[in-house]
Amino acid sequence: MDIGQIEKAANRLRSRTFTTPLMSSTILNKLAGRRILLKPECLQHTGSFKYRGAFNAISNLSKKELANGVVAYSSGNHAQGIALAAQQHQCASVIVMPEDAPQLKINNTRRLGSEVKLYDRAKQSRESIALQLAKERGLTMIKPYDDPMVIAGQGTVGLEIAHEAKSHGVRNADVLVCCGGGGLTSGIALALEANAPCFRARTCEPEGFDDTARSLGQGKICANERLSGGLCDAIMAPHPGELTFPIMRRLCGPGLVVSEDQVLRAMVAAFRHLKLVLEPSGAVALAAALFLKSNMISDPVIAVLSGGNVDASIFAKALATDIDLCA
Amino acid sequence: MDIGQIEKAANRLRSRTFTTPLMSSTILNKLAGRRILLKPECLQHTGSFKYRGAFNAISNLSKKELANGVVAYSSGNHAQGIALAAQQHQCASVIVMPEDAPQLKINNTRRLGSEVKLYDRAKQSRESIALQLAKERGLTMIKPYDDPMVIAGQGTVGLEIAHEAKSHGVRNADVLVCCGGGGLTSGIALALEANAPCFRARTCEPEGFDDTARSLGQGKICANERLSGGLCDAIMAPHPGELTFPIMRRLCGPGLVVSEDQVLRAMVAAFRHLKLVLEPSGAVALAAALFLKSNMISDPVIAVLSGGNVDASIFAKALATDIDLCA
Repeated sequence: MDIGQIEKAANRLRSRTFTTPLMSSTILNKLAGRRILLKPECLQHTGSFKYRGAFNAISNLSKKELANGVVAYSSGNHAQGIALAAQQHQCASVIVMPEDAPQLKINNTRRLGSEVKLYDRAKQSRESIALQLAKERGLTMIKPYDDPMVIAGQGTVGLEIAHEAKSHGVRNADVLVCCGGGGLTSGIALALEANAPCFRARTCEPEGFDDTARSLGQGKICANERLSGGLCDAIMAPHPGELTFPIMRRLCGPGLVVSEDQVLRAMVAAFRHLKLVLEPSGAVALAAALFLKSNMISDPVIAVLSGGNVDASIFAKALATDIDLCA
Repeated sequence: MDIGQIEKAANRLRSRTFTTPLMSSTILNKLAGRRILLKPECLQHTGSFKYRGAFNAISNLSKKELANGVVAYSSGNHAQGIALAAQQHQCASVIVMPEDAPQLKINNTRRLGSEVKLYDRAKQSRESIALQLAKERGLTMIKPYDDPMVIAGQGTVGLEIAHEAKSHGVRNADVLVCCGGGGLTSGIALALEANAPCFRARTCEPEGFDDTARSLGQGKICANERLSGGLCDAIMAPHPGELTFPIMRRLCGPGLVVSEDQVLRAMVAAFRHLKLVLEPSGAVALAAALFLKSNMISDPVIAVLSGGNVDASIFAKALATDIDLCA
């Protein structure tokens, strides 16, 4: 993986992706006690950054591969990214999704034209199901993070941050990234290394699913103990990827971990003061920016708000907690 | 009022306001049966476009006026705009707000440093209270819409639309605007007249509070029959302004009216497919774009999403309606 692949992705994506702007809020800065710049990828097409990698990967397929179709597995954000990008290439897509995925993600994936295959997270292997489909139907598999084209697409977020942060006068900052398998984090880290070497990517994870923080701490890939039961459905990857981990190990600072309570409070903060809908997984970096101590992260800090595909019931639950953010 | 005042406002606001980008959604286009470009002013500082006019008006005050402070009346969006702009000018501010205003608006206005005076919407006149305060304390009154500096500030939304729409290849469109007293609509209409004469501003109002639509239809200022009881608290102005109405009459197409049910459905659509939090008043133009018939508005169409300051309880109520948007 090198910066050239990310720059090529940026060229492919130029007229397709939405260049999400850096935002800020006086009240959130005051609450956090530090200046926070926010990169709202929840506003990206399909509601998360995943469309970037998906489009980049699909646009690289041959005519024959496009004619045969693609298959992917995903709890719902990669799913929607693949669905839209495939539709735009007149390419059929099949997505393997857990049956307990948020209903909004399942509905939107179907609405964008994908065939959705549901599986039981506790009993079945999504990789096996997808590989079987690929074999039977001649589909090309597009992995959610351990794919150079996917990492390169996600890395365009880092190119935009490097460019936009300068116009905000920020030349030195931690860039907090919600981290599952590490596709977004590693792509951003590579883009920052080349374009803003004084910026440093930091992985953000919820308690109980801190495989990347532990992996970075121990210098080797560590796995999560469980793969269900958490609030943050989109970033419950089993462990950092084979491709993504070496990049993160080389370039990222220590991993950051927040509580689910802090994630819910960050969702409320985004509702009240940014007017953004964040899903739990997409609010992890904001939670770190708002609530972690001053010696753990930089001031100013940049937080990537990675997705907003949340069911109304979960969102309403977060709002109903009626948290006093000043506390 | 002329375009020169709006251009001067744009220069004053350049480093202060957030240049909200034009957004789009494949799924919303499909639902609406037309191409919709969205201008999300809910993402503006303080959660609505009102900061633009407030900052422009306050930045025009003399040192003596700034030292004495300002007073305004508002149900909450102009309030927050004034509060932040005053704070940035080290100027004291007093805001007269109805006691039934959304709690979030009252809290945020206080949090931004304003003194809030609550009044009873049914029994007291907000103008009288504000005028009395202005007299007693030597404060400068900044009206919510019938003020040339305020209209000019809001008009910068129109300059941005004219500029951004071209880069989306749109050169001919209705621009739908949530309309209370007409400050935003008249400012946008003036900006479009000068910079995108093939674009036409259209007022959007909720049923029961359609004073502007009736005024445009009859060619004279008509009032609302009531000033409370509606879902759209931010645009329940008594009637179009003395300054704003002649501009709207000259430049706008026929006024558009939507139901409160359509407003709630537009809030759900923005939650699901744009990841934006809209307050009811800020969703009126989106409701028109999504649900009005094809012979009433253009395709493509541009909708200004004017604000997102909604209490969690109202937002949760909208989400709980569990509307099938396809229906």
